[in-house]
Amino acid sequence: MMTVIVKGREMSLDSREKMILAAQELLSERGYAGTSFGDVIERSGAPRGSIYHHFPGGKQQLVTEAVQRYAAGVLAAIAKADEAGSSVDTVRVFVDVVRRGLRASDFRLGCAIAGVVLDATPSDVELLALTSAAFQGWRVRLAGAFRRDGATEAQARRLATLVVASVEGAMMLARAERDVTPVVDVGHELEAHVRAALG
Amino acid sequence: MMTVIVKGREMSLDSREKMILAAQELLSERGYAGTSFGDVIERSGAPRGSIYHHFPGGKQQLVTEAVQRYAAGVLAAIAKADEAGSSVDTVRVFVDVVRRGLRASDFRLGCAIAGVVLDATPSDVELLALTSAAFQGWRVRLAGAFRRDGATEAQARRLATLVVASVEGAMMLARAERDVTPVVDVGHELEAHVRAALG
Repeated sequence: MMTVIVKGREMSLDSREKMILAAQELLSERGYAGTSFGDVIERSGAPRGSIYHHFPGGKQQLVTEAVQRYAAGVLAAIAKADEAGSSVDTVRVFVDVVRRGLRASDFRLGCAIAGVVLDATPSDVELLALTSAAFQGWRVRLAGAFRRDGATEAQARRLATLVVASVEGAMMLARAERDVTPVVDVGHELEAHVRAALG
Repeated sequence: MMTVIVKGREMSLDSREKMILAAQELLSERGYAGTSFGDVIERSGAPRGSIYHHFPGGKQQLVTEAVQRYAAGVLAAIAKADEAGSSVDTVRVFVDVVRRGLRASDFRLGCAIAGVVLDATPSDVELLALTSAAFQGWRVRLAGAFRRDGATEAQARRLATLVVASVEGAMMLARAERDVTPVVDVGHELEAHVRAALG
């Protein structure tokens, strides 16, 4: 939550921030199509009229900021996991962050980016570009870790794609089953594969 | 399309079938929250009133049948892929079916099951049970192939989960980027990993 204090603006900044966080949570929970301005207002507790004040570009603007913020948060989690040591550790720590997030929300919160992609049609060009940029950022960061540990460029790209794709899919399976086993199983196989691939 | 001909019922069966196929397509394209009865009617070209006649249980009933039919279709594709020979071939053929499906629809159609999971909240117990059963069916079938090729029971379960999860995630990445490379890359790594795991 932003705590910038400017006379007469403090509440305003706070409401805006709350709306972005509420939108992130709703996208993670029920996807893009299931998230309305009304839901965001209710979840954030912000005054009804203020959402148009803060997001004159409408749902598109709010979702853009929520997606970008969410993507940056995951990227930071990957970077933090990467401090663990080897890229095998990075994968393990990242998978563990995802597992704990599912448990902490009782399987309510998945991935906000996935919630946008699966509700977007090919004509939603801007939405898809946003999600593509998010996935790309995570994959480039992971690929960097694999490169550092000796992977070729193509191999690093493929491994990073496998990690992001399988963790996204595992979250989906875990939410369907309300059980973290798919995430644990995928983490186990990813570690084994990355270890073997990097020799 | 069903072609059962019973005097006075032929059109009726046809409309019902068209609605299920339209619902499958819409769930694959834009998810559960983005799919209304109105969309299904429009897409299927069926008469407006007939949807309530065929699906007195409403959207829930239509979605249930669409999801079950979709899940059975994918299961059949996995079983057909499994005729290829080894389980490594099964994975390759399955990934290739997914890749071709994305291309054929110009990235419009993803997975209908994913489109339901990501729009469902934990309170949508019946929807989640449907999706869980779908994923479970595919994983059990794949695990059987891995078992046949020498995997232990736990290993077969983990490998099958990795395949389903990573293919689901790869479809998501491919749709975001309008590019099949994530699917190709994931397929490459999956084949390598399964081959190594099964010795």
